[in-house]
Formats: sequence, C-alpha cells, structure tokens
Amino acid sequence: MTARLVLRNASELCVPEPDGREIQRLPRHALYAEDGVIRWVGPEDQLPPESRGAEVVDAQGGAVLPGLIDAHTHLVFAGDRVSDFSLRARGESYSSILAQGGGIYTTVNATRSAGFGELLDLTRKRLVSRVSRGITTTEIKSGYGLTAAHELRMLEVVKALRGEGFDVEGTLLAAHVIPKDIPREDYLRSITHEMIPKVAQEGLARFVDVFVEANAYTAAEAERIFSAATEHGLLPRVHAEQITNSGGCLVAARLGASSADHLERASDADLAALARAGTVGVFLPGAMTFLGDHAPHLGLAARKAGLEVCVATDQNPGSSPLSCLATAAMLAVTQMGLTVEESLRAITLGAAHALRRTDIGTLEVGRKARFVVLSHPDSRALIYGFSEPPILRVVGA
Amino acid sequence: MTARLVLRNASELCVPEPDGREIQRLPRHALYAEDGVIRWVGPEDQLPPESRGAEVVDAQGGAVLPGLIDAHTHLVFAGDRVSDFSLRARGESYSSILAQGGGIYTTVNATRSAGFGELLDLTRKRLVSRVSRGITTTEIKSGYGLTAAHELRMLEVVKALRGEGFDVEGTLLAAHVIPKDIPREDYLRSITHEMIPKVAQEGLARFVDVFVEANAYTAAEAERIFSAATEHGLLPRVHAEQITNSGGCLVAARLGASSADHLERASDADLAALARAGTVGVFLPGAMTFLGDHAPHLGLAARKAGLEVCVATDQNPGSSPLSCLATAAMLAVTQMGLTVEESLRAITLGAAHALRRTDIGTLEVGRKARFVVLSHPDSRALIYGFSEPPILRVVGA
Repeated sequence: MTARLVLRNASELCVPEPDGREIQRLPRHALYAEDGVIRWVGPEDQLPPESRGAEVVDAQGGAVLPGLIDAHTHLVFAGDRVSDFSLRARGESYSSILAQGGGIYTTVNATRSAGFGELLDLTRKRLVSRVSRGITTTEIKSGYGLTAAHELRMLEVVKALRGEGFDVEGTLLAAHVIPKDIPREDYLRSITHEMIPKVAQEGLARFVDVFVEANAYTAAEAERIFSAATEHGLLPRVHAEQITNSGGCLVAARLGASSADHLERASDADLAALARAGTVGVFLPGAMTFLGDHAPHLGLAARKAGLEVCVATDQNPGSSPLSCLATAAMLAVTQMGLTVEESLRAITLGAAHALRRTDIGTLEVGRKARFVVLSHPDSRALIYGFSEPPILRVVGA
Repeated sequence: MTARLVLRNASELCVPEPDGREIQRLPRHALYAEDGVIRWVGPEDQLPPESRGAEVVDAQGGAVLPGLIDAHTHLVFAGDRVSDFSLRARGESYSSILAQGGGIYTTVNATRSAGFGELLDLTRKRLVSRVSRGITTTEIKSGYGLTAAHELRMLEVVKALRGEGFDVEGTLLAAHVIPKDIPREDYLRSITHEMIPKVAQEGLARFVDVFVEANAYTAAEAERIFSAATEHGLLPRVHAEQITNSGGCLVAARLGASSADHLERASDADLAALARAGTVGVFLPGAMTFLGDHAPHLGLAARKAGLEVCVATDQNPGSSPLSCLATAAMLAVTQMGLTVEESLRAITLGAAHALRRTDIGTLEVGRKARFVVLSHPDSRALIYGFSEPPILRVVGA
C-alpha cells in the first residue's frame, strides 16, 4: 500500500531558487507526497484529487522549509577540548597548547581509544539532537584516526549509522593533520594505496577531503591524493585557505572538486576559479567565530564571483563546538555578509549541491518529502537568533 | 519544619573570586543548605553532622555553578524583527528600514498593542526557557512603551512575574529612543516628574537606565534623569558608548551608577573612571555580534583598567535575539577577549554586583542555595560551544 501524505495550512513554502542565489517564499502552498517522494507542489486551493484521504500534516500556519543539510562536520569524536578553549583565551599559542598535551592530538588519542560502540553512541546522540534542530542530512569526515585502521573505523561508524536510517554522508579526511607516529611519505602512500581503495571497495564514503594549509598538506599532496580518489570513483573536496592562502582552491577547481571549504583567505581569483569549475564554496562561520577570525567581505566576494555557496556547522571539538545549522546560517549573515535569503539557500539547495545530491535540498516533485515546519509564519525566522530555531516539527527524517 | 538540602557528588564547585577577576574550581566540594540558604560549603568528606538526613541532590559527577544571572535584557516585547534582519543584511540603512515601517517603532507598536495578559504570557514563556538554560535571575527593562502608561505597564508585567516566583529585576528605560508622538522636553519631564516617582512609589523597579547615544539621549539629559532617580532612591545605570562615544561612562562614573553597558567605543579613560566609581562594565556580545560590530580589545582594556565585568544577553528582538547566557559568555571570550574564567565570573558574581545583589551570584554561606549542575565535570564546559550548555539540572530557581 502506498503511504500518502499531504502538507496543509502552511503560511509559505520556502523553495530555494534552482539557478538564482536566494529563496522563493510561496504563500499558502501545499505539497502532496507518495512513499516519501514529493508528487505535487502548488497553491493549497489547487490540491490535486489524488491527495484526498492522504495523511495530513498540519503546519498550523507556520512556514515550511526543506530539511536542512549540514555538508561539513567532524561528528565522530570522543572527548572535548574545554581546556584548550581556556588556554587559547589566555593567549597561549597553538604550539604551547600542543606542548601541554592539548590540541588536535588530544582528540585523536581520545577517538582512537574509544570503542566502536562508544563512538557509535556518541555520534548517534549528536545526530538525534540535530534532527530536532531540523538537520536531516549530515556529512561526517574521518580525520581523528590518522592510521588506516582508525580512519576506516570512523567511516564504519558513519556507515553503521546509515544502516540505522540516518541520512549521513561519509568523507575520508585521512589528510587532516600530519600524524606524529609515521613518516609523512608512508602515510601519504597509505592514503592513496590502502585507504582510498578500501573506502571505495566497501562503500565507506563518497568523498575524499584534504586539509591544504601551511602546517598540514600541500596543494601538490592534495593533487596526488585526489588523483587516487578520482581513479577509484570518489569525489574530491578540500579544506582551503582557512588560515593562509595555500593553493587549495586552485587544486579544487582544476580537479572539479565538489566543494572548497572555509575560504576566509581565498582571493577573488580563487573564488572565480571555483565558480567556473562548478565547485561549491562552503562557508564555516562557526569555526571562524569560535577562533575569533573575521571575513566580513566573503559573502559579497562570492556573489561577485558567481560562486554557489553552502553554509555548514563544521562541528568539531576543537574549533567549532556548534551543532545548530540555523545558528551557523545566522553567523554567515552577520559575520560573513550573506543575505538572509542566500544563507537559507546555502543550508538547503546549496548544501545538496556541495554533496552532489539531487534527492534533497528543495521542495519539488521527485525530491524526498522531508521538511521542517516552523512555529513562525516567516521562513527567515529559522535563522533569526542564536540558538533556538522556532521548529514545530520535522517530517520525513 | 526546616527544608534541608545537601549537594553531593560534584566533580567541582565553581566559586567566583570575591575580589579577583576569575573563578575558583574547588574539587569534590559539597554544600549544605537550610530553607534555601547555604549554611556550609567545603570538601565533601568533611560534611557537617547536621547535613545528615537532608534531601540529597546528586550531581552525578558533574560540575556545579551558581545560578546564572542575566543583568541586561529587554524581555517584555511583542512581535519580532525578522524583516529588519533581512533588510539589514541587504545593506539597507537604519533610516531606510525605519522609512519602510521597520526598526524599533515596530516593536513599540506591537508591544503597545498587546494586551497585558499577552505580554505576561510571552515574557513568562521566555523566563521558563531561560531557567532550563541555567538563568535563574533576569533583569528586564521597559523602553518599548514610550508613554508613562505604557512604560509603567511593562514594569507591571515584571512585577507580576516576580509575584509568580520568578527572580526578575525591573529597570525603567523610558529614555530608550526618542518618542515620535510627544515633544522631547515634555517626555523628559514625564520621565522625571511622573514615571520615576510612580516607579519608586509602587516598587516597580530598582533601576533607571538611559540610552546615551548620538540619536538617543545626551549625557546631560541622562544626568537630569539620574538626579530624579537618585532623589527617589532608584539606582542609575546606563547604555554607554555602543555606537559612538557619547559621554555615558563619565556620567555613570560621576553618579556612581551600578553599571555601564555595551562599551564598544569606551576609551581607556572611560573604563578607568568606571572602575574608580565601582560601576560594573556590562559586555553585551550578542548585540555586537548580531550587528556585525567588533571590539576584540575590550576584555584586555577592562583588565588593565581594573574594571569589574558582567556579561549579559541583551535579549531583544532588534539587535540581540539571544536567550542563552552561556552563549553570550562564549562570545565574550571569542569576540571580546575575556578569558573563559573571567567570563564565568561575569555571568555570576559580576552580574550580581551589576544588579547590586548580595544574595546570589556565588556559592557561599548566607547566599541562596541556587545552582546549576552540569553533565560535564569541568565548570568551563558551560560556555564551550554555541547553543547547547550541558545542563543536567537547575536547583533552587
């Protein structure tokens, strides 16, 4: 039997512009779905006859948006970095924090030490909390393992959660930081000759990411890793120009990466190259704000370059303890210069494009009937405010 | 019969330094209280005999902090400013937004139009949500009425909520913006000769606040209002140097105001004057961040001046839709340069001092047994992250 659903009594549907940069707010629109797929969208007074008798979702006069998509997180981790936060606020340098046993290796050690079940439980709990905040798809990177076995184990956690019904996307970010306990060249070879083939073979992830930065990986190393990735049918994406301009964008553009993320130090030429390549620019205002960095020009620069934009939380214990995508979208407006309407598109259709997904991200015929009902009649209220998105109900997650 | 309570199994008690700027983290400390007042604080293994048989609050290994105090909000309001947020992000000027029917007069009109019961319900709902986030005391200003009747009505809402058992402090902020519908001099006279006497007589508020700013009230007008306030036994406090340096700090210092709030454009001399006067400096990072402003130097400047610091949400629909004081404290660290430990003191004892309260703000004998139990063993985890303070339980609110 067909499960049939009709959404009624919405003040408006928020539908991202397919080609433009913003959103449409369609007043008094309804939608009809069968078996979780949208079959019809239009003015409520024109609902088609086949919608009769379907289960009714009553939006109670609230606005309805597509389920939110968080296209950049590091959600599989154990422990926290509260002490680092305190030390950093006292002006301690990153190297001094490392010397005191802090920094990213704290998270690597805690994550390596945690059992598979513990990582699974921690990550599941985070995903459940995210759904209540309207986030129905979450990308999750490895990168706290730094050995083949530990990197793959992180992605196996993601795969297990997919098996439980969460819409999660895995990304191999073995090239996150430089491991301490293995020569650099050996590790690179392990990524290209061991991890990437295994990830592809076992369907552990669709993406391969590299942190291109002064103290991490070079653009040349990224190119080498991405060559192996594409040979195995995996899609490149890149952490680019966060702290220094290190060439990540140009590699991403040359290889047609699905996204280039961070971008605080990207030049106009970098952004134009990404736009030409169809690479999506991912803004991560949580990390920028938590680290006290600033890039108020970035929204305008992306608009001028014609670059499609995504906004994500970058949730991780070190630089972005932020689980709320609506808050990220607000910060992308106030700290990075997106318009409110651009930012709403960036956490829905822009994010779907960053993840190369065509089944989610907007409310149109053929996409999943997965949406967020607000307790407010204006879609834009979702990202107005810091921490309490006015969510009435999440459907189809 | 005496209600007796003992707090056990805390990893640490967070006790603000009475004279210093930070906090003490006392490991494995417990507290004992009778009738809601702390009678003993010390190492758990030295609990006094009289604590036997008392009701036990089990902290389950979490850290315990004093109930949080939000010393600056505009919590009585109707409506929202979602459209303003969108227009502002598109680069519209404040005057253009006003011309389109937006801006603060939107909130004035909505608040004036709302019934007393509606304002009461809206504000109560906000207070209940705040308690779940650890905020056990909230200061609330008038300022969306702009006539004697409407200003007093806002404070009557606060008084009614106090009657329901919420720990709220009222502040008359009749001098918020310049009303459109009454000559300036008539309005000032109404504040000094009508509102202030009535507020004092009916116990509607303990504080009188003035927004000293280029397009609002002058320092001379503030001095005139504060003279009337002190004559009637009300305490002055001031919105000072938020957008321009307009002399608010020096008036505050001269009159021994309890606090000077905002301070983004305060000079070192302003901060030193406040410190000498015993006036507390209130940082409001929510408004600063939401407006895209920056003052990363302010923490260091306050430290150098020896100025006692409070952090508050400034919750209001126009410039700070922020209800989470822990998030404000995080932003005071990352955007204004406080240390984590300073920021924790600023939302507890610093805030109590801003409100001239001696019964709350720390965990010591004689103060209220009102505290927040975290689900994390480190007190500092309260303000690590954007929006999900790890709160297990709130006691004594």
